[in-house]
Amino acid sequence: MDAMPALPPIPAASFASDNAAGVAPQVMDALVAANTGPALAYGDDRWTAEAVDQLRDLFGSPVEVVWCWGGTGANVVGLATLLQGWQSVIATDTAHIVVDEAGAPVRFSGSTITTVPHVDGKLTIDAVAPFLDWRGSEHHVQPRVLSISQVTEMGTRYTTDELGELGAFARAHDLLLHVDGARIANAVAAAGGDIRSMIVDTGVDVLTFGLTKNGAMYGEAVVFLRPELAAHAAHVRKQAGQLPSKARFVAAQASALLADGLWLANARHANEMAVLLATLVADIPGVEVPVAPEANAVFARIPWDRFAELRAWSFFWEWDPADSLVRWMTSFTTTEDDVRTFAAGVRAILEAEPVEPVEPAGAA
Amino acid sequence: MDAMPALPPIPAASFASDNAAGVAPQVMDALVAANTGPALAYGDDRWTAEAVDQLRDLFGSPVEVVWCWGGTGANVVGLATLLQGWQSVIATDTAHIVVDEAGAPVRFSGSTITTVPHVDGKLTIDAVAPFLDWRGSEHHVQPRVLSISQVTEMGTRYTTDELGELGAFARAHDLLLHVDGARIANAVAAAGGDIRSMIVDTGVDVLTFGLTKNGAMYGEAVVFLRPELAAHAAHVRKQAGQLPSKARFVAAQASALLADGLWLANARHANEMAVLLATLVADIPGVEVPVAPEANAVFARIPWDRFAELRAWSFFWEWDPADSLVRWMTSFTTTEDDVRTFAAGVRAILEAEPVEPVEPAGAA
Amino acid sequence: MDAMPALPPIPAASFASDNAAGVAPQVMDALVAANTGPALAYGDDRWTAEAVDQLRDLFGSPVEVVWCWGGTGANVVGLATLLQGWQSVIATDTAHIVVDEAGAPVRFSGSTITTVPHVDGKLTIDAVAPFLDWRGSEHHVQPRVLSISQVTEMGTRYTTDELGELGAFARAHDLLLHVDGARIANAVAAAGGDIRSMIVDTGVDVLTFGLTKNGAMYGEAVVFLRPELAAHAAHVRKQAGQLPSKARFVAAQASALLADGLWLANARHANEMAVLLATLVADIPGVEVPVAPEANAVFARIPWDRFAELRAWSFFWEWDPADSLVRWMTSFTTTEDDVRTFAAGVRAILEAEPVEPVEPAGAA
Amino acid sequence: MDAMPALPPIPAASFASDNAAGVAPQVMDALVAANTGPALAYGDDRWTAEAVDQLRDLFGSPVEVVWCWGGTGANVVGLATLLQGWQSVIATDTAHIVVDEAGAPVRFSGSTITTVPHVDGKLTIDAVAPFLDWRGSEHHVQPRVLSISQVTEMGTRYTTDELGELGAFARAHDLLLHVDGARIANAVAAAGGDIRSMIVDTGVDVLTFGLTKNGAMYGEAVVFLRPELAAHAAHVRKQAGQLPSKARFVAAQASALLADGLWLANARHANEMAVLLATLVADIPGVEVPVAPEANAVFARIPWDRFAELRAWSFFWEWDPADSLVRWMTSFTTTEDDVRTFAAGVRAILEAEPVEPVEPAGAA
Repeated sequence: MDAMPALPPIPAASFASDNAAGVAPQVMDALVAANTGPALAYGDDRWTAEAVDQLRDLFGSPVEVVWCWGGTGANVVGLATLLQGWQSVIATDTAHIVVDEAGAPVRFSGSTITTVPHVDGKLTIDAVAPFLDWRGSEHHVQPRVLSISQVTEMGTRYTTDELGELGAFARAHDLLLHVDGARIANAVAAAGGDIRSMIVDTGVDVLTFGLTKNGAMYGEAVVFLRPELAAHAAHVRKQAGQLPSKARFVAAQASALLADGLWLANARHANEMAVLLATLVADIPGVEVPVAPEANAVFARIPWDRFAELRAWSFFWEWDPADSLVRWMTSFTTTEDDVRTFAAGVRAILEAEPVEPVEPAGAA
Repeated sequence: MDAMPALPPIPAASFASDNAAGVAPQVMDALVAANTGPALAYGDDRWTAEAVDQLRDLFGSPVEVVWCWGGTGANVVGLATLLQGWQSVIATDTAHIVVDEAGAPVRFSGSTITTVPHVDGKLTIDAVAPFLDWRGSEHHVQPRVLSISQVTEMGTRYTTDELGELGAFARAHDLLLHVDGARIANAVAAAGGDIRSMIVDTGVDVLTFGLTKNGAMYGEAVVFLRPELAAHAAHVRKQAGQLPSKARFVAAQASALLADGLWLANARHANEMAVLLATLVADIPGVEVPVAPEANAVFARIPWDRFAELRAWSFFWEWDPADSLVRWMTSFTTTEDDVRTFAAGVRAILEAEPVEPVEPAGAA
Repeated sequence: MDAMPALPPIPAASFASDNAAGVAPQVMDALVAANTGPALAYGDDRWTAEAVDQLRDLFGSPVEVVWCWGGTGANVVGLATLLQGWQSVIATDTAHIVVDEAGAPVRFSGSTITTVPHVDGKLTIDAVAPFLDWRGSEHHVQPRVLSISQVTEMGTRYTTDELGELGAFARAHDLLLHVDGARIANAVAAAGGDIRSMIVDTGVDVLTFGLTKNGAMYGEAVVFLRPELAAHAAHVRKQAGQLPSKARFVAAQASALLADGLWLANARHANEMAVLLATLVADIPGVEVPVAPEANAVFARIPWDRFAELRAWSFFWEWDPADSLVRWMTSFTTTEDDVRTFAAGVRAILEAEPVEPVEPAGAA
Repeated sequence: MDAMPALPPIPAASFASDNAAGVAPQVMDALVAANTGPALAYGDDRWTAEAVDQLRDLFGSPVEVVWCWGGTGANVVGLATLLQGWQSVIATDTAHIVVDEAGAPVRFSGSTITTVPHVDGKLTIDAVAPFLDWRGSEHHVQPRVLSISQVTEMGTRYTTDELGELGAFARAHDLLLHVDGARIANAVAAAGGDIRSMIVDTGVDVLTFGLTKNGAMYGEAVVFLRPELAAHAAHVRKQAGQLPSKARFVAAQASALLADGLWLANARHANEMAVLLATLVADIPGVEVPVAPEANAVFARIPWDRFAELRAWSFFWEWDPADSLVRWMTSFTTTEDDVRTFAAGVRAILEAEPVEPVEPAGAA
């Protein structure tokens, strides 16, 4: 056997993360188009007004919106607007706000994140309920917000029923429900495209509506489903360093994605590519896809002694070495060709003899 | 007299602020060009590496750079990297970090900003020195950083000598010198174009190198002149919500501005337009320009009872109503025609009878 | 001349600060008496209930009280209960919360303290008013609390009229009025003994009611004059590390001071000793008392080249070397003998030839 | 059967918590004795110097000490001195700093507490190790401190071997080891009385040395075993509102406890009372003591439908209703008579018919 000759070209798309993709062409066109003459900074412009209108149409309700630079910032602004320092957020131990934001929400808000074990990446009422016993006691942080990710960090999706149960539980116990929707588009697309039944009807209070992973260059929207919760959000956003100055360029991107359902089309395509990838790798010897993809991520078990070799060929991230698990992500830019090339490369490498991998330039 | 017929068309540029301008065409071209294929997120890309190299060339030293979303965020990251909670920053009562950042540096760092009176917008050693008596006492915050703005919020510039004196004072007293350079390009251009003599030789420790007001869509660089000060800057940046995910697009903008001296050309042009404006309005009856522009702002006294009327014609901000002072700003987009049109409009309005102004659409 | 033989013995009391005094005998008796059997911790005890009742009687209104360990902690709890991170406190540049608390209120609350110049140690409406222009703008911190010290750090007292004007201004502008009353007893005693007219009728919202300087071993009460403001105070106190566990011992001290007007008697005595001291030193050559004492501090100008010698004899603190100013403080323990001895010593030293001082053991 | 006649008198001691006890007589004597003449505030006094010397003798090393008001404050000061905002503490989900401090360490430090499951109340290396993978990545908080409680909140004690393993692990991985020793005296007494082998030789870096539960009125010592770690501790303490003003009274208490081994005698007595109680209740029908007491707490399973009745007779706290678990604590004040009376009461109630309990006055 000779591994190298069998290797297909490196795929044009990256399967490392959906934020390795560039910018959707419609978004780039919108940025160029918005670069016309002066506009007052900080959101006092017609592009911002229009994008807010589009979001209100989308949600079918008078939501309040503050635009932020990035996902971590948007989560900080959403959460800090809801919280006092002596209150807490309850989230799973896999949540992005727990694992991947370097303590940003805690540092800024002074509040505690109480972490509980996840079930398939999801927060359960059973895990939350015991902490309600802390209510009223000055010795304990006071639970105030449930924060979940939709899509979860494990690639799963809450069903509408699950969201509705969390929302009802929150309302019944004077809690607020926050959704980190960095990939909300993928979740909505996978669930059939109706964001109102997923977010509005279930009782979500605040949503980070992700734009970047969906095709934007930068920018996220914090959507307050109950407008009164946003009373001080603009102050929080500014203090959190999340107020874009040339704001029209954030709004123009959002408008481009929201127009003609581009946000859903982009997400649907990424989801479909994940399903295709899962199908194509499923019968590669040594590869196992334990859970069918529910959005745009494929979690796969691979022969771990070949991980470095695979990654050296086409870079991606390990997910859980203890479980031999990697994560392959698709995006709006991933083509069917990319997927077939990637699957073929994985197959070729795993069917060949092990070789010493060469570290790729791009992963320095 | 009949005011309305005499009014020239509204100028194409806004004199409200340099952040009302759009994006320089070279920057927009660079954004489009960078949108090619995948790139790992968070700065692990070739655009970022190149932009850092350009900054090292510019400063002639192995500076460390962390890229941030915006000006407030960049100041927060720069300052918080330098500070412990029980330490303080000393700044003027007019500083952007004191007046215009909604308490962001204080909230994030937990540190105190000790404000002192400015002299022409500048921080003086005389104002700082008494606080060194607090050194060593647990009862007082411990002075650690001097933070100045170059260009200042009053439109003035520190001379190289003034900076050198502050730098020497800082070194002599174990203080660090931080420069909020949201308009550093305008300062350098006005001083002849040599950033090394202004920033490196004078002993500046950390600089917010502003890109947005100079022609970028978004993004600022925090430049650590002494690399060891940046040891933890990446952690601080992430926790402050300032780590761009699709980082190549920040770096590509910086590269476009730094290439061929565009950053200085843009700034020089803005500065020249300010000088022209100051000249053209100087002899309008009732208008006084108390200080010749030192960068791209013209501070003018006007008959205050006509302020609303002027603003309704072509929007700009009041600066100090008590002193009848307004601020008119120019940018890289301001043309000589814009300036002449604006000056003519101001003249026409002030030479006409007062009328009831109509609030402009853009200033909602 | 021979300085040493003329020196009287060092006075038994310290004129360094009123916190150099020990514990009033009635307070110590109360501590001993409270040490009887078990009592649930954290305030769930009969001593705490009684002390709260005494304070409600004193103020003639249903005030809410949270007991704290010390003065800085009490100010932190009072202020942080009132504030959001994006709001601000306005205080003088001489305020204890600005100068002497090492940034504690800022660190804990995340809020900004905007400092303004004092007039005789006092906050003026003229200094505050311009910051109301920041209201509503996301770029600026939002003024929410006026914080004053009664007695001020300059030894002066706000008159009831001055307090009433500040209170009315606060109410008119949706601000809250916070009083750091570390020496509130001295202020009330000096003003004739009626705390209701000084604090309740003037519209104070929250008061740090100082116990320590008045004869307690430790402990301060944060008194919320408008009970609804205290809704979350217990949570803030716990999170600020200010909840005493064996709480009965704080309350027992307060009860002892409040019983039979001991708090006023102690303060009145201290005030009288300050007046006596000011009188006795007034005609010492080289000594000047620029302002008659309004509470228990004497600020005196002395020949600065003799400061070290005086301090070496009987320790006290410099106040403002640039103005040759020292501060001498009296307390409930200061006797008339102490005052006469101290004044005689100052006179003897200043009338003698300068000698090289010996640093006192107690001032290491 | 008739329950009431069989009931013994309520015991004189409370079994609710060791902080329901008063003050040890030797400590009260020391407070009275220290109330002699003036002393400079904030620790610049001879009592403080002496108590520090005693602690240095006790530990046999030049430890640095900062005195704090209470346990939560001491933990905040110890931890915040060690931490940057982007770093984390790893602790069990039962830790006092996680459960019982209302988020105080997080609010003040801005740092994250990463909670992991406990094993018998203890932190294990297995639980900690995975988080070291976060090292170096800007996306994750950076583990810096392991914080454990000795005695644990579950009433267990780390053995010297267990501590040594944690200490070695910490040193090997550039972590610091923090011990919340609110009940360190009970742990040392139970382990034979040698604090050096438990704390110094095992590599503990910072210890909250608890005084209050050991017989003091208030006050705790933060002991830095490696003096260089304390470089900024005084500043942190002041900013955390934990600097006692009349500091001699904290130190005098510590001296009284440290003199002649009173701290160990008090703890040993409390521990013995717990053992006695466990023995006496062990054969009461329906009562189970699942783990022999390792310090001064007895955890007992009781028939849960009788909990209210038992508590109404002699107040104590539920621990884990789901496990029918209550916690009974002894202190230096608990007499053998108290224990026998309490055990007899529990027996009498459980052997009688259930009755409707009357809520006790003291538990309001």
